Amino acid sequence: MKDFTYCAPTQVIFGKDTEKNIGRILKEKGAKKVLMQYGGGSIKRLGLYDTVVNAIKAEGIELYEVGGVQPNPHLKLVKECIELVRRENIDYLLAVGGGSAIDSTKATAVGVPYDGDVWDFYAGKAAPKAALPVGVILTIPAAGSEGSNSSVITNEDGLIKRGLSCDLTRPAFAIYNPELTYTLPAYQTAAGASDIMAHTMERYFTNEKDVDMTDRLCESILHTIIRNAPVAVADPTDYVARAEMMWASTVAHNDFLTAFRVGDWASHQLSHELSAQYDSTHGAALAVAFPAWMTYVYKHDVQRFCRFATEVMGVEMDHFHPEETALKGIAALRSFFKSIGMPTTLSELGVPDTELALLAKKVKKGADGTVGQFVKLTEADCLSIYNLMK
Amino acid sequence: MKDFTYCAPTQVIFGKDTEKNIGRILKEKGAKKVLMQYGGGSIKRLGLYDTVVNAIKAEGIELYEVGGVQPNPHLKLVKECIELVRRENIDYLLAVGGGSAIDSTKATAVGVPYDGDVWDFYAGKAAPKAALPVGVILTIPAAGSEGSNSSVITNEDGLIKRGLSCDLTRPAFAIYNPELTYTLPAYQTAAGASDIMAHTMERYFTNEKDVDMTDRLCESILHTIIRNAPVAVADPTDYVARAEMMWASTVAHNDFLTAFRVGDWASHQLSHELSAQYDSTHGAALAVAFPAWMTYVYKHDVQRFCRFATEVMGVEMDHFHPEETALKGIAALRSFFKSIGMPTTLSELGVPDTELALLAKKVKKGADGTVGQFVKLTEADCLSIYNLMK
Repeated sequence: MKDFTYCAPTQVIFGKDTEKNIGRILKEKGAKKVLMQYGGGSIKRLGLYDTVVNAIKAEGIELYEVGGVQPNPHLKLVKECIELVRRENIDYLLAVGGGSAIDSTKATAVGVPYDGDVWDFYAGKAAPKAALPVGVILTIPAAGSEGSNSSVITNEDGLIKRGLSCDLTRPAFAIYNPELTYTLPAYQTAAGASDIMAHTMERYFTNEKDVDMTDRLCESILHTIIRNAPVAVADPTDYVARAEMMWASTVAHNDFLTAFRVGDWASHQLSHELSAQYDSTHGAALAVAFPAWMTYVYKHDVQRFCRFATEVMGVEMDHFHPEETALKGIAALRSFFKSIGMPTTLSELGVPDTELALLAKKVKKGADGTVGQFVKLTEADCLSIYNLMK
Repeated sequence: MKDFTYCAPTQVIFGKDTEKNIGRILKEKGAKKVLMQYGGGSIKRLGLYDTVVNAIKAEGIELYEVGGVQPNPHLKLVKECIELVRRENIDYLLAVGGGSAIDSTKATAVGVPYDGDVWDFYAGKAAPKAALPVGVILTIPAAGSEGSNSSVITNEDGLIKRGLSCDLTRPAFAIYNPELTYTLPAYQTAAGASDIMAHTMERYFTNEKDVDMTDRLCESILHTIIRNAPVAVADPTDYVARAEMMWASTVAHNDFLTAFRVGDWASHQLSHELSAQYDSTHGAALAVAFPAWMTYVYKHDVQRFCRFATEVMGVEMDHFHPEETALKGIAALRSFFKSIGMPTTLSELGVPDTELALLAKKVKKGADGTVGQFVKLTEADCLSIYNLMK
């Protein structure tokens, strides 16, 4: 049971048509010049683009926009946004989209008041001291970036994907209308589900003892996804399933579930390399990486993996063969990912076996040369885990 | 599934010795003159008083103090604090204690910048527009006031107990050291457990459909108390039990569990009258009131009461007699309260049967003359429920 601090001040505005209030909300926050970042054309097809632009302009707020934020958002675009914000004296940042638009916006937020290269923050060379305020209209429940203090940026120079955790980047507000996710394709919906589960499981697999309350809260979130993701994949316009996934996305990653513990994050680091090098969807890479990581580390705490198997995956406990129960839980998770259309092998992600040693080398490790907390993994361990993904 | 807004920005600082940082924390918040409110002598016996006073003075912050805040804190003392704050230009308020110290501090916070009578806010005649910042050092996990937007004050004139919900009163920070609760007597520990469960159950019994995620989160909190309260009652120095209860106290009442629903609050209103007229401990009054309320309303949604019985109280579902399962769940809750030393009848609270009609009349009701959401209760319903508490 670890000491902790926790502060998740993001104002959550949840419900139908909430995006229509974006102009009034920004006005109340004192915004005068806003930069909106978004991804591809989907928000235009949704009609969301027009709604947002009109609502903001109706309040007399000047609006600038940068579209085309890519999945695994790139440093180059962040730098262009920083330049634009400085040039135009923009005072508020708005992300319309999912984790990519939000993370690009967060990187812009810390980059603007910083004299050096914003990559310094992601390379761990410097820590932000100030940030512009960030608002979010969420259209993809997955990354949890709408409520988290983290963002992940890919540096095109070497295709290095790195994260920053900084409370200054927690969004000031986030707007959720589940109907805005109705057009999300089944694959993206499932990848989002995988991401939300992974954020929860990174916290669930901990060495801290006596943390039952947070364990139960984690299990609640995992159940929520296991129940609702297949519904949303089968019926994209199921309001309830979409709503529960949106809210779970935030709760899974705003550090509420980090109470009394630290996260592991090895599976995230392993999957970051898959996304950075092969541009695979983050959640899809996690669906491949997480069960492999579990298979490699479960002997470290069979008891905890049995709890996962029985309490989360509904496996019956075999008290005479706990390791088998643990393994059945991992197999059930892999089957679940498969059932919602996620890949479970590297070949499905287009990653050739010949590259695994290089990937293992590139995985971001700490000062002691290892990655993870539950089990500290060396480069050799990482390679073994990549081999389990084949 | 209801739309909702949610913002719980209180900075949580959790762990051993955290109270020793109170001076630095107040300094970082910009406090120059602080008014500390606390209850009886327990914080002096704990040594907490000296720790806090020394830590604050060491930072060169001027400290004023008002002790003697009573359980069911009184309006008169709030008004004295408001006068003191105005006279001395105090800029930050600190509560050291449980719900009473915090609620008295919150009332002070909204009263200072208001020209009228602070009771206006509690009588529903006006809404606060500004408030001084409030910090908390928590010593009693129960009311959840350390993270909530609510406070309850008793007006000595007529012994009227009324609540105010106002986001301006959410504490800026809250400090939790489970060791500070070691000296809490068994009765107060159990009353706190009852209060935390009641806050959760007020939200659990909802008419909103399709709210499984929040249901599960509610169940997690209820399990946490059912597991840890008996431990803390039996061994007051069990760190883990104390810690889980402290964190559950906040999560149960900071509106996280109100997502997608509204609370009921009839049991609270019924018990407020018991506390206001007979000065019974809030949690003890709730232990009496809640099972009676349940018994009166369970037929409104037998399905939900069966879920409560099976998922929370561990009752086996009798699919052929669901009403019996529901009733067994209520009986199990009453037994649980009894097992941790809580009263379950009015006579144990010292409330004479002859007063019930008057109590039912005094229960705070809405414009339509009813109280509650799950079932809207008239004065006659309230009287019937009080009769079930005999």
